[in-house]
Amino acid sequence: MMVKFRAEGRVLEGTLEGETVEGQGRSYRLEEVELLAPCSPSKVVCVGLNYREHARELKMEIPGEPIIFLKPPSSVVGPGADIVMPGSSSQVDYEGELGMVIGRRCKDVPADEAGAYILGFTCFNDVTARDLQRKDGQWTRAKSFDTFAPLGPGIVPLSLKEAGSARIQTRVDGQVRQDSSTSDLIFSLPRLLEFISGIMTLERGDVIATGTPPGVGPLKRGETVEVEIQGIGILCNRTV
Amino acid sequence: MMVKFRAEGRVLEGTLEGETVEGQGRSYRLEEVELLAPCSPSKVVCVGLNYREHARELKMEIPGEPIIFLKPPSSVVGPGADIVMPGSSSQVDYEGELGMVIGRRCKDVPADEAGAYILGFTCFNDVTARDLQRKDGQWTRAKSFDTFAPLGPGIVPLSLKEAGSARIQTRVDGQVRQDSSTSDLIFSLPRLLEFISGIMTLERGDVIATGTPPGVGPLKRGETVEVEIQGIGILCNRTV
Repeated sequence: MMVKFRAEGRVLEGTLEGETVEGQGRSYRLEEVELLAPCSPSKVVCVGLNYREHARELKMEIPGEPIIFLKPPSSVVGPGADIVMPGSSSQVDYEGELGMVIGRRCKDVPADEAGAYILGFTCFNDVTARDLQRKDGQWTRAKSFDTFAPLGPGIVPLSLKEAGSARIQTRVDGQVRQDSSTSDLIFSLPRLLEFISGIMTLERGDVIATGTPPGVGPLKRGETVEVEIQGIGILCNRTV
Repeated sequence: MMVKFRAEGRVLEGTLEGETVEGQGRSYRLEEVELLAPCSPSKVVCVGLNYREHARELKMEIPGEPIIFLKPPSSVVGPGADIVMPGSSSQVDYEGELGMVIGRRCKDVPADEAGAYILGFTCFNDVTARDLQRKDGQWTRAKSFDTFAPLGPGIVPLSLKEAGSARIQTRVDGQVRQDSSTSDLIFSLPRLLEFISGIMTLERGDVIATGTPPGVGPLKRGETVEVEIQGIGILCNRTV
C-alpha cells in the first residue's frame, strides 16, 4: 500500500509491504518509521447515512440524494495518532468508514468513469462529538475538532468492485462494535463521486468518506479504536 | 490593501493603492492586471445567523453559541470572477459578509489576544443555493459549489474596533439589498476567533466569514453583485 511516513527527521512517500517500508530508494523496518496520514486532502467530503442497515437502526428514511458535510484539513491525523477528546463535549463517538482517495483533479465525473479518478482506498474514522452534533443541528463543529479525522494506514488501489464489497469492522479495545460490508451502501462509490464532483472540483489527495455502518457508539479516554477494512488494513488510534 | 494578482502570466502578491498595483518591485496600472482572491485559505469557516436584525427578520432565536459551517477551498474565487449558477438549484442567493483573514497558525486564542492573529479583513459573499439548503437540512452542499465563495478585492489591516463598526452593503445591479453595520454582530470578531480556534487549528490565510446582515435574496443570471465594506472596498462579481 502507498504510505507517507517520517524517518530520520524527513517526511517521505513510499510503500508498505508486510513490515517493510520503502521510500526514496531506502528500506526501513516498520518500527523505525512513523506512519503519517497517507495523503494531505485539501478537503474531506463526508457522506451522512449511507448504509441501509444504519438508516433502519436510526429509523430514518433512506435519503433520495446523499447528504454531505466537510471536515477541515486540520482535523486529519495519521495511523497511531492520538484522538484528543475536547473538553466541550461529553460524548465522542467513533464512526468507521471506507475512504475513497481522489487521484487527479476532476469535476462532473460520470459514474461510469469514476475508476479513472480514484487513486485508491483507505480506512477512515469520522470521529464525532455527538452531543454537539445534536445541539447545533449543523454537524460541522461536532466533526471538525483537531484529530477528529484519522486516516490510514495507507492507500490501496482496490478496484471499485473490491472496494464496494469489502467487510468493514470497527473495534474498541478489541471488542467488535461495527461489522458490516460496503455492499450495503445506499449510494455506490461511483455514484458518490458523480454527485460530489458535480458540486465541487476535487483535487488529488482529497478524500470522500463514504458513510458509516450501524453500531456507532461512544469512546472513553484511553481506549484504542481500530477500523479494519478487508483488503486495506487496520487504522488504529487511541483517545486521550 | 494587500492583493494577489496575475500580470504578464505570473501570479504575484503586492499592494493596491488607488489605481496602482505594486508587486515584486514593479508597478502596474489596475487595468493591466487580473486581481485574484487575496489569500488561498486551507479552510473557510462561516458563521450562521450572526446579526441581531437578521435573526429578528427570520423570527429565529438569538443563538447561545455560534453555528459554524465550512466552505471548501475549491469554492473560492476572486474579485471580478463569475459566479456560476448550478443547474441543480433554482434559487441562488447572495449573502454579503465581512471576512476575517488569519495571519498566523493558531489554536485556542483568547478573545483578548485576537488582534495578534488577524492579518486583516476583506469582503466575502457566502453564495448559497437556498433551495438545496432547505432540502438537505445540512448546509454544506448548498454552500460548496465552485465559485460560491467570492473573496476580495484585497486584505486591509483594519483594527478590530474599525472592523467591528463598519458599514456593510450588498448591491445587485446597483440596487441596495443589504445595508447594515458590523456593530450589529451577535458574536464579536474576537469572540468568533476564540470559539473557532477552540475547535480547530487555523492557518495563515484561512478565512472566517462572520455572518450576513438582513436582506438576503436571490440572484438572476447576468446580474452584478457587489459587497462593499467601509474601509475595505468593493467585491464585485457577476452571475453566469
